[in-house]
Amino acid sequence: MEIFKFVLYISLFVSLSSATSVVDFCVADFNFPGTPVGFPCRNPINLTADDFVFSGLGVAGNTSNIFGVAVTFAIDLTFPALNGLGLSMSRLDIGVGGVVPIHSHRVSELILVIEGEILAGFIDSNDQVYYKTLTKGDIMIFPQSLLHFQINVGKTPALAFVSLNSASPNFQTTTTSLFANDLPTDVIEKITLLDATQAKKLKSIFGGTN
Amino acid sequence: MEIFKFVLYISLFVSLSSATSVVDFCVADFNFPGTPVGFPCRNPINLTADDFVFSGLGVAGNTSNIFGVAVTFAIDLTFPALNGLGLSMSRLDIGVGGVVPIHSHRVSELILVIEGEILAGFIDSNDQVYYKTLTKGDIMIFPQSLLHFQINVGKTPALAFVSLNSASPNFQTTTTSLFANDLPTDVIEKITLLDATQAKKLKSIFGGTN
Amino acid sequence: MEIFKFVLYISLFVSLSSATSVVDFCVADFNFPGTPVGFPCRNPINLTADDFVFSGLGVAGNTSNIFGVAVTFAIDLTFPALNGLGLSMSRLDIGVGGVVPIHSHRVSELILVIEGEILAGFIDSNDQVYYKTLTKGDIMIFPQSLLHFQINVGKTPALAFVSLNSASPNFQTTTTSLFANDLPTDVIEKITLLDATQAKKLKSIFGGTN
Amino acid sequence: MEIFKFVLYISLFVSLSSATSVVDFCVADFNFPGTPVGFPCRNPINLTADDFVFSGLGVAGNTSNIFGVAVTFAIDLTFPALNGLGLSMSRLDIGVGGVVPIHSHRVSELILVIEGEILAGFIDSNDQVYYKTLTKGDIMIFPQSLLHFQINVGKTPALAFVSLNSASPNFQTTTTSLFANDLPTDVIEKITLLDATQAKKLKSIFGGTN
Amino acid sequence: MEIFKFVLYISLFVSLSSATSVVDFCVADFNFPGTPVGFPCRNPINLTADDFVFSGLGVAGNTSNIFGVAVTFAIDLTFPALNGLGLSMSRLDIGVGGVVPIHSHRVSELILVIEGEILAGFIDSNDQVYYKTLTKGDIMIFPQSLLHFQINVGKTPALAFVSLNSASPNFQTTTTSLFANDLPTDVIEKITLLDATQAKKLKSIFGGTN
Amino acid sequence: MEIFKFVLYISLFVSLSSATSVVDFCVADFNFPGTPVGFPCRNPINLTADDFVFSGLGVAGNTSNIFGVAVTFAIDLTFPALNGLGLSMSRLDIGVGGVVPIHSHRVSELILVIEGEILAGFIDSNDQVYYKTLTKGDIMIFPQSLLHFQINVGKTPALAFVSLNSASPNFQTTTTSLFANDLPTDVIEKITLLDATQAKKLKSIFGGTN
Repeated sequence: MEIFKFVLYISLFVSLSSATSVVDFCVADFNFPGTPVGFPCRNPINLTADDFVFSGLGVAGNTSNIFGVAVTFAIDLTFPALNGLGLSMSRLDIGVGGVVPIHSHRVSELILVIEGEILAGFIDSNDQVYYKTLTKGDIMIFPQSLLHFQINVGKTPALAFVSLNSASPNFQTTTTSLFANDLPTDVIEKITLLDATQAKKLKSIFGGTN
Repeated sequence: MEIFKFVLYISLFVSLSSATSVVDFCVADFNFPGTPVGFPCRNPINLTADDFVFSGLGVAGNTSNIFGVAVTFAIDLTFPALNGLGLSMSRLDIGVGGVVPIHSHRVSELILVIEGEILAGFIDSNDQVYYKTLTKGDIMIFPQSLLHFQINVGKTPALAFVSLNSASPNFQTTTTSLFANDLPTDVIEKITLLDATQAKKLKSIFGGTN
Repeated sequence: MEIFKFVLYISLFVSLSSATSVVDFCVADFNFPGTPVGFPCRNPINLTADDFVFSGLGVAGNTSNIFGVAVTFAIDLTFPALNGLGLSMSRLDIGVGGVVPIHSHRVSELILVIEGEILAGFIDSNDQVYYKTLTKGDIMIFPQSLLHFQINVGKTPALAFVSLNSASPNFQTTTTSLFANDLPTDVIEKITLLDATQAKKLKSIFGGTN
Repeated sequence: MEIFKFVLYISLFVSLSSATSVVDFCVADFNFPGTPVGFPCRNPINLTADDFVFSGLGVAGNTSNIFGVAVTFAIDLTFPALNGLGLSMSRLDIGVGGVVPIHSHRVSELILVIEGEILAGFIDSNDQVYYKTLTKGDIMIFPQSLLHFQINVGKTPALAFVSLNSASPNFQTTTTSLFANDLPTDVIEKITLLDATQAKKLKSIFGGTN
Repeated sequence: MEIFKFVLYISLFVSLSSATSVVDFCVADFNFPGTPVGFPCRNPINLTADDFVFSGLGVAGNTSNIFGVAVTFAIDLTFPALNGLGLSMSRLDIGVGGVVPIHSHRVSELILVIEGEILAGFIDSNDQVYYKTLTKGDIMIFPQSLLHFQINVGKTPALAFVSLNSASPNFQTTTTSLFANDLPTDVIEKITLLDATQAKKLKSIFGGTN
Repeated sequence: MEIFKFVLYISLFVSLSSATSVVDFCVADFNFPGTPVGFPCRNPINLTADDFVFSGLGVAGNTSNIFGVAVTFAIDLTFPALNGLGLSMSRLDIGVGGVVPIHSHRVSELILVIEGEILAGFIDSNDQVYYKTLTKGDIMIFPQSLLHFQINVGKTPALAFVSLNSASPNFQTTTTSLFANDLPTDVIEKITLLDATQAKKLKSIFGGTN
């Protein structure tokens, strides 16, 4: 009998919470447009533990490219459970001599080195540079929106994981921002003080025009 | 001459920015009391790259305790550069059969398994439980404020790293919250429906009184 | 004539604001999926004062259940005008000897006692417990995400109201989180150090399996 | 022995958390200047349950004034445990015919009527007014920053409690803002279209000059 | 060949980012209902530089109205690229003797005077008034949610621009809030202490009834 | 007598609000260290209207430098009333052929052109560039954290004002970040793919070493 009463009590909770589960998490539903703070939520009824686990970071990326680097992203688009929760993680495989080119994003980043030797650094808005060689188990913080980079300075491939406090960080790579589009060379000269020949050389590498 | 003019220009920037560097980061100064959003900032003049690197996560913790686990924290108190940046990282060493007991914190957490087999799970506010065995390279998200746990279910020690989107997450462990203080046993019975003998047994393990 | 000019002026305001009314409030439209920050907004044209008033807290809930408590929620799901405004309120009726079992939620809570004597407390992340008996007119703050509870320790039914700074707080009750689902008993033992017999006893009360 | 190991484990937690307790709450220390998000925190070592309880709302205020109202505030200044937690509560005693004059504040407010009949309303930024008579147990939401008011329209004194999602809401009363200072009468005429005689009459009531 | 490898690398970025562009901006799509934090985003594929530029502030507004003022808004509804970015701008043309009547909004505002002499001021929640005559090149800050006003006190038309830290600020004008709707005159008397004759006079100007 | 009662009522408000004025604004006190969200507040008792007005933007800056530009900042350091209010404004004087070099900052920016012709643009994180020539009265939005630039492409000096939604934006200029410090040339080569000769040429202009 006591149990029966309890069931009534619990049923109140359940009837409410079947709808409010979005208070706990909001797995992205890509059938609707995004908003400034993320995507609409899938119905939680259909979710399982698998929706909250991502295995894609267990596999090394292919570093056969001009930077000798592979970045594998666990962000909202690839791991929709992150939507609205303010966290993402990515795997960095950096070949010998490879590099994550200088870039920035709105949010902060922690790098954790698992294998190899990585020279990592960032530059603050006073043009002060901070860099150091990191080895296994080291972590370094790159404060929000500042330019930063990582170079494999060891003799073996390097492996690192980075965590950022956004589910959809906007990575902006400086070199491709300047040279992988149709921003005119004379504009590039003006806004960077780089030489036109330099700009054209990099445009040819990255497919930029003008 | 052009250079001379430029120096004037830059000096404006520099004079401003020597004071505004806190816009980039705010390494905690523990000589002042904290605020609801973190500690006051150290003068950036005295900072070097070493202030932004933490090596403490490279060393395994001692898992010889009742839970068979060691947690090593890179949070604002141990790594002051995290102050105000909304990120922290911790290292989990879990012995064979060891466990991170059920706990919660205000912010979300991503776990990354480096070695071993970890059964990880969380429970939502509808009492729905989501759990799965994670292996090397897997990540799992534990949404903010929900109860969660990790168990080493493999035959070897497990190693994992967790990232949380706060520099000062407030870990609350359920069992020690109930049994490691002087909350009276009859109160515990009422608020949990546990038996008094069970409560007293755990109080004796965790040093609780009453 | 002056009036005429004014009308032009006002019409600018009105034409703009008929669309922007969502800047003032965003009464939830449950025909669309939620987002990480709440539900889409109903068209304000159709709203009246009744949409901003909720009378459900005026009626005592039925406390005939195992905890001797009834919680009536004015949250976004029951009072859609709260959507996006960061506030909710709930009514607690606690029978003689009844209890709001230990639980937590992401946001902070203020309790206001209207009738009766309530022993209320919370536990911080250092396992320090703070509790006190509250009487009519007392308020107590339960800081965000910390475990807390309320017990009617008086000789009459107690009435209290709680206010939380979210329109959709995620209440997580510890005992039902552990025992009202299929989390295996041996997992519960590991992550709580409770005995299996205790776990099974509570599973039988709350309908848990395994 | 097991206990001994556990003590080591716990000591790690304790040494960390004695300093980090501010992650849980931040009881205001008025010996230091405030910041844009609240006051610095008191050392948690010295806090007791009494710091988290406020009894001042249990006593009726004196309504013998021009508005026939008394407002008793539980805000950060009177109840320092609220600092940083984003909630406050106030008690409204409204005499027969009394009124909480039209005012606004940055945050949202929920009113709960305990006794009496209160005509409550707000006006949105389209000049649309929403008002209704509330009775015992009714709640109404006043969305952030909008003008609102409450009038005791019953035959007995009214009692209500309001909850706001800030520990330090900035109440701005329209009439005293205009007439309780030295804002020149001709300026008031221009910016409100009120007549000078009306302005001077109210200045004389509220002590305004010019 | 190197280029070929690079293309693979870039294609990863591009395939991800074509979907994630919303991380950079979220131009409002008015075909969907708004949310508490703004409108859903248009597909970035179809955007051009024109979407990020607004020319409507280049034209003087018509100040032939009762306040002698014209406000031209660049807010989310008129300039959808602002959606989610937390900024808006408006143009103020104030005729000789004209006025922006006293009003408030949730967010802060900076005014920049381009031409003319403007007496600008605000009132804080202690009823303290701060006002000063601004001339060309002056800026003044009006803190969030406080009542403020601007009067052209010069002999020529004045031009100013205001910037607010919201894409959809909710402007609430005190006089029209009171007198441009059907709020009964006796209620207005009670909540403002204005005389009924004054209230009726202003109702007749602004079209209010009752 | 009525007045007397009112005075009691008002005195409650005043005694409270003399301390709480920080709820309205928080003029920076540079005698204390900053925090992650701004500086501690000055005592409001000593503030006057002058503290909320800044006249420094009325004067043209000296554009005789390598970029042909002068930026005059109204940010927290120069205009302390902005502290905590989330807004700042700056004046741009751009000589004929001058440029605001490519840069980024954490927050969004609106530019308003007052005189001249300015080619303005930004690049998103997909390397897509958006640029357009702006003339008098045009405004353009630069979304948070994205690289952007402005060039005077007219035949006369240009004048513009920019507004950003932070009181302390962290301007990071790409060229000086790379070349005005001791970041080694071989590192620059790796992380940008620029040639060493180009890097050294720019280092010599901006005073960089290594």
